[in-house]
Amino acid sequence: MSVLVAGTTALDSIKTPYRENPRLLGGSASHAAVAASLFARVRLVGIVGDDFPARYLSLYRRHGIDLAGLQLARGKTFHWSGEYEVNMNHRRTLRTELGVLEGFTPELPPSYRRTPFVLLANNAPALQLQVLEQVRRPRFVLADTMDLWLNTALKELLVLLRRVDALVLNDSEARQLAREDNVIAAAKKLHRLGPRFIIIKKGEHGALLSYPGRLFLAPAFPLSTVVDPTGAGDSFAGGLIGYLASQTGSIVRHLGRAMIYGSVVASFCCEGLGLSRTTKVTRADVERRVRQLDELTRW
Amino acid sequence: MSVLVAGTTALDSIKTPYRENPRLLGGSASHAAVAASLFARVRLVGIVGDDFPARYLSLYRRHGIDLAGLQLARGKTFHWSGEYEVNMNHRRTLRTELGVLEGFTPELPPSYRRTPFVLLANNAPALQLQVLEQVRRPRFVLADTMDLWLNTALKELLVLLRRVDALVLNDSEARQLAREDNVIAAAKKLHRLGPRFIIIKKGEHGALLSYPGRLFLAPAFPLSTVVDPTGAGDSFAGGLIGYLASQTGSIVRHLGRAMIYGSVVASFCCEGLGLSRTTKVTRADVERRVRQLDELTRW
Repeated sequence: MSVLVAGTTALDSIKTPYRENPRLLGGSASHAAVAASLFARVRLVGIVGDDFPARYLSLYRRHGIDLAGLQLARGKTFHWSGEYEVNMNHRRTLRTELGVLEGFTPELPPSYRRTPFVLLANNAPALQLQVLEQVRRPRFVLADTMDLWLNTALKELLVLLRRVDALVLNDSEARQLAREDNVIAAAKKLHRLGPRFIIIKKGEHGALLSYPGRLFLAPAFPLSTVVDPTGAGDSFAGGLIGYLASQTGSIVRHLGRAMIYGSVVASFCCEGLGLSRTTKVTRADVERRVRQLDELTRW
Repeated sequence: MSVLVAGTTALDSIKTPYRENPRLLGGSASHAAVAASLFARVRLVGIVGDDFPARYLSLYRRHGIDLAGLQLARGKTFHWSGEYEVNMNHRRTLRTELGVLEGFTPELPPSYRRTPFVLLANNAPALQLQVLEQVRRPRFVLADTMDLWLNTALKELLVLLRRVDALVLNDSEARQLAREDNVIAAAKKLHRLGPRFIIIKKGEHGALLSYPGRLFLAPAFPLSTVVDPTGAGDSFAGGLIGYLASQTGSIVRHLGRAMIYGSVVASFCCEGLGLSRTTKVTRADVERRVRQLDELTRW
């Protein structure tokens, strides 16, 4: 089945201690869409400016990503620039230029309106809501978010949370939103905000899934070298929902395994700058790493 | 088979935001010995002063712990006092009084000298070496350590590491000792210091085991309330080696599962002040939680 991925489509300038990498393809929707495309047909919702390189449109297309919902506007594409320290654990945002993202009103083409799986990749909650309102009776809606929206758009985020099946966020965001230091306790509290499924990402420590009466712990695929973690969280969410959309039957039954697939796709993302590694990954590479992860954790 | 546990036998005064808990039974060897006693016969090596409460000797005995190697000296028992912040993630040492630990020379009774499994629980590397030199051809030696010894007794620690099968330490210590930020890469580097098995504890994020050609990731048992994490690492090491000693056949074959048992015993440790919870745990409680952990991680 198809997956609708809405979020930011951006140009990322990523500075590492070794080199600068200007205007790479980035944004939450780009990472999530490429990740999901490993498993399912993807419909992209976003906006880019007239400076957006044609080769990136080709890249989306090569992954079978439907671009009917990608607006091409006059002006500049959303541009994020950031810098990593030597150990890759600390990232610093140097600059954020909204460009055409400012004033963006997502409008879904009619062909998108019955998409069963919806990923509201990280973006302003108001925009996530606008997208959601245009989808007719989706089967499964997963929303991603970040600390920025917890601090600046909490009210809209809380409205959104009443309307999604699943929320994905990282551990510090979970603690902040739940006002609870313990992550397990925080997960339980977050259900009260609406989502039946709470997914907490812990970076290199894996992720956890909470739903009424059940907890699932997913390991991260161990990497001895991390080139660029930008987009790893988006890839996780994209891989997860893409895998879910590729399965038949009950969603609950496949969610644990979907977490593993998300985790594996995120590990590939970290191994290259921007989308450079993820775009070269095949489904067979993913399956191999899923099997390895099984061996690494079997006792 | 029997396990020799050598380390500190202490009195811990633990202050939490809610109350003070003076002179609880503590020390690396106490936590590790009680943990190991869930699975195997334990022989304790340590020293206590004449202020050591008789009820703590009874506690050791109730767990079938052989006290022939516990020296009773004139003076004060090693006393540690520390304070936890509200979220239990930050501990501050208020005071350390070595007492009889100062000038302690461990001497193994003849009955201990052929113990097959040896846990050199956290202590000064010079004392760990002295213990090791008195054991005849042990089958498996596991050494624990801490940042204090990396900073003050690195030379002795490096001598010790040439002579042990396995080293257990936490992630920040592993990074420091390997001079490598990435934990997976750090584990690989640490083998060069001697140990065939490197075990890295990551607290609530679980632990990893590295040995030539193989990596194993063990989850932590998820807890929504942590009362007191003091001794969790010691309990992990004790549970691990105790479980190993209770199994027959190749050690490598049982190590992954032993990590899970260690992890589970550590989780019980965190649920009570000092040893209050661990001492009440039964083997059946442990097995139940091992099964739960299996369910929490199966996909």
